[in-house]
Amino acid sequence: MTALEAAGRAIAAESARYAGMGWMRGTSGNLSVVLGRAPLRLAVTVSGRDKGELSMDDVVVVDERGEAVADQPHPERTPSAEAGLHGRIAAVSGAGAVVHVHALAPVVAAERWPGGVPLRDLEMLKGFGRAAHDDPVTVPVIANGQDMRALGDAFEAGYAADTPALIVARHGVYVWGDDLRQARHRLECLEWLLRFSVQWDTHTRSAR
Amino acid sequence: MTALEAAGRAIAAESARYAGMGWMRGTSGNLSVVLGRAPLRLAVTVSGRDKGELSMDDVVVVDERGEAVADQPHPERTPSAEAGLHGRIAAVSGAGAVVHVHALAPVVAAERWPGGVPLRDLEMLKGFGRAAHDDPVTVPVIANGQDMRALGDAFEAGYAADTPALIVARHGVYVWGDDLRQARHRLECLEWLLRFSVQWDTHTRSAR
Amino acid sequence: MTALEAAGRAIAAESARYAGMGWMRGTSGNLSVVLGRAPLRLAVTVSGRDKGELSMDDVVVVDERGEAVADQPHPERTPSAEAGLHGRIAAVSGAGAVVHVHALAPVVAAERWPGGVPLRDLEMLKGFGRAAHDDPVTVPVIANGQDMRALGDAFEAGYAADTPALIVARHGVYVWGDDLRQARHRLECLEWLLRFSVQWDTHTRSAR
Amino acid sequence: MTALEAAGRAIAAESARYAGMGWMRGTSGNLSVVLGRAPLRLAVTVSGRDKGELSMDDVVVVDERGEAVADQPHPERTPSAEAGLHGRIAAVSGAGAVVHVHALAPVVAAERWPGGVPLRDLEMLKGFGRAAHDDPVTVPVIANGQDMRALGDAFEAGYAADTPALIVARHGVYVWGDDLRQARHRLECLEWLLRFSVQWDTHTRSAR
Repeated sequence: MTALEAAGRAIAAESARYAGMGWMRGTSGNLSVVLGRAPLRLAVTVSGRDKGELSMDDVVVVDERGEAVADQPHPERTPSAEAGLHGRIAAVSGAGAVVHVHALAPVVAAERWPGGVPLRDLEMLKGFGRAAHDDPVTVPVIANGQDMRALGDAFEAGYAADTPALIVARHGVYVWGDDLRQARHRLECLEWLLRFSVQWDTHTRSAR
Repeated sequence: MTALEAAGRAIAAESARYAGMGWMRGTSGNLSVVLGRAPLRLAVTVSGRDKGELSMDDVVVVDERGEAVADQPHPERTPSAEAGLHGRIAAVSGAGAVVHVHALAPVVAAERWPGGVPLRDLEMLKGFGRAAHDDPVTVPVIANGQDMRALGDAFEAGYAADTPALIVARHGVYVWGDDLRQARHRLECLEWLLRFSVQWDTHTRSAR
Repeated sequence: MTALEAAGRAIAAESARYAGMGWMRGTSGNLSVVLGRAPLRLAVTVSGRDKGELSMDDVVVVDERGEAVADQPHPERTPSAEAGLHGRIAAVSGAGAVVHVHALAPVVAAERWPGGVPLRDLEMLKGFGRAAHDDPVTVPVIANGQDMRALGDAFEAGYAADTPALIVARHGVYVWGDDLRQARHRLECLEWLLRFSVQWDTHTRSAR
Repeated sequence: MTALEAAGRAIAAESARYAGMGWMRGTSGNLSVVLGRAPLRLAVTVSGRDKGELSMDDVVVVDERGEAVADQPHPERTPSAEAGLHGRIAAVSGAGAVVHVHALAPVVAAERWPGGVPLRDLEMLKGFGRAAHDDPVTVPVIANGQDMRALGDAFEAGYAADTPALIVARHGVYVWGDDLRQARHRLECLEWLLRFSVQWDTHTRSAR
C-alpha cells in the first residue's frame, strides 16, 4: 500500500465517522493528510462526495495552493474547494493532518463571539493541547468567503502556534494535528468546549 | 430489475436512513421517485408503514394527482395521503425525487417565521443549491391541511424555481432534487441551516 | 412458540429499541402485552433488568393488580413495580400493549403544564390517533407515587378513551395501543409533539 | 482468564459504550475496577488512549494513591492521571467500580449550582440508589485541579455514603457502585436527572 493509498483509506474511515456524528451533512467538510513537505503535498478529499461513503480512492493530491498536481494516479480529479486552506494551514502550522467539518456548535459560538471564542479553565482544554488552568485560549474566527487565498491570509494573520483550530464564521471549523487521530481528538474536545460555552451562555443570558 | 423495483429499493433504503435519524417517527413522512413524465408517474411509499422497515415492494405508482394508476403490480394499494403533493411538486419543479420528513427544526422555524424562513450568508446554502453569499433565500411556509389540491395550490403560489423546499407549518418539510441522493443532501443541509437559525434566534432573544 | 414466548420476544426487541433511543436509562421503564382478558393476564418485564439486554425469558405473567400469577413458568419472579398500573391501563382502556419509558420531553412538559399538556393543530397528532385539526387534545398528568392503586385511581379519574397516554409527573410516560407496534408509533409521535411544545414554549418565553 | 483480564475486558466494553454515547470525547474519562482490598488494588485504564478502541490489555494495576504497582504484567505503563482519585473514591466508599466521564450535563449543572446540585422528588433517583420522594439529594461539586491528593481531600470532606457521585466543576463526573454495571446504571440515571434539571432551570429562567 502506497502512502497515498494509506492516506486515502484513513481519510475515508475518518470521514465516515464524522458523517455518522452529523458533522458532514450533505457533502460538506473535507479532510487532508500531508504526504510530503518539500514540496508540500497533501491528499485531500475529492469535491462533492457523500462523506459517509468514501472509498480510499476518493482523494486527490494537491500542492500548497490546493491545486491538483500532475504526478498522481488521477490528476484530472477536482479537489475540495477548500483544499487551498488545508494547504495553507499545513504549511503554516506544520500539521500532518487537517480536518474541516460543519459541526453546529462552532458556528453558533462564532456568531456569539465574532472576535474569537474565549475558553479558559476547563479540563477539556487538555485534549485540545492546552492547559486546564490559567491558560486563556482564544479560538480565532474569520469571515467566510470563497477565495481561499483571502481566507488563508486571514488565518495566517490570526495564527497562534498553540491553538490548533480556526472557525470560519457562518461556515464551519478547521482543526489540525500530527495525524488524523490527533486532529480528531482535538476536534472532539473543542466541539465539547464550544457546546458547553454556548449552552452556558444561553443559560446565563436567560437569567438576566 | 425494473425501474419500479429500482425506485422501491432506493426508497426503502433512504427511508430507513431517515428513520434512523429520527425524522420519520411513527409512520410519518413519505418519499417518491419519478418514473416517467408523459404522463407523470411516481413511485411513492404506501400509506401507514413503519419507514424503518420498508421493503422494495412497499411502493405504489401514482399519477400527478397522487392517485394509484391501474397499470401496476399492486393497483389496490393505498398511496401515502400526501402523494398528491408529491405529484404536484414533481410536476411543477421538474424534480426527479421528492422527500417529505418530520424533522423538528423546520416545524419550529415555520412557527417562528410563518411568512417564510429567511436564510442568507451561510456556507451550507451551497449544499441546498444556492450561493453562500449575497443570495437571500426564503423557504416558503404554507398552512397545514388535508386537501392536497389546496396544499398544492399554496405551494405553487409561492414556488420559486431556485428554492427546492417547502415547509408545511405544524407538520413537516418537503425537499426535492434530481434524485433521492440530491434531495437528501439538500434536506440535510436545510435541516442544519434551520437548526442553526432556530438556536441562534433563541439565543439572541434570551439576551434582550 | 407459546403466546407468552412470543410476547417475551417482542417485549425484548422493543425494549432494546427504546434503550438505544435513550428512553430506558439505567433499568428504567417497562413494557407489557395482554395475553388474555377473562381474567386479565399480561406479560410484563421482570424487575430491575437492563432493558437493552433482555431475553424473551425476562417476562412474568401478572393479573390486573400487577401480581405474578401461580400458573406460569417462573411464578417466583418479581414483576416491574409498575405492573399494577400496566394492568389497570389495560383493563380500563382495552389496550393490547402498554409501554412505559423515561423519555425526557414528557417529564419537562408535565412540569410546564401540570394540569395536562395541551396539543392541537399539529399533523403528528394523527400518529397519536387523533385529528390534525380542530381536535384539542389534553395529555393527562398525574402526580408520581409508589402506590400503584393510587396511581391507577388517578389515571382512571382522568381517563379519556380517545387519548392513549398518561404522563406521571417527575417520572415518565405511559402510552398504549392494540399491540406493541401501535403503542410505539403513538409514543414516537407523542414524544415528537412534546419536544416541539417544550422547545417552542421555551423560545416564546425567551422573547417576552 | 485472570481477575485482571476480566476487569480489562469489562472496562474496554464499558468504555466503548460510553464513547458511543459521546461521554468520552477525545481520550477523556477513565474507568476502574477494584481487584483487592488488603491492600487496595484497582485496574484502571492506561493514560491517553481512545476510549472507543480499548482492548482488555489497556489497563494498569494501581494502589490507593493511583500509582502503578510493581507486581503486574506491565508495571511500566502509565495509569490515567486521575487514577489517584479513583483509588481514593474506592477506599472511602467501598465501591467495586468507579466511572469517570465527560458528559456535558453534569458540568453545566455544576456551573449553575456550584455549591452542590440539588435533586428531589424525581423517580429516576431510585436508579441512583435513593428514594423517589422526600429524600433530598445534593450531588457534591468540587473545584477542578490536577493534584489528585487535593481533589481526594475535597471529595472526602463532602462525602456522604448515600450519594455515589461527585462532580468536578468545569471537568466531568465520577459515579461508583458495586460493579461497572451498577455504576453505569447510576450514571445513566444521574445524567438524566441533571439534563432534566438544567433544561427545566433554563426554561423557568426564560419565563421571568
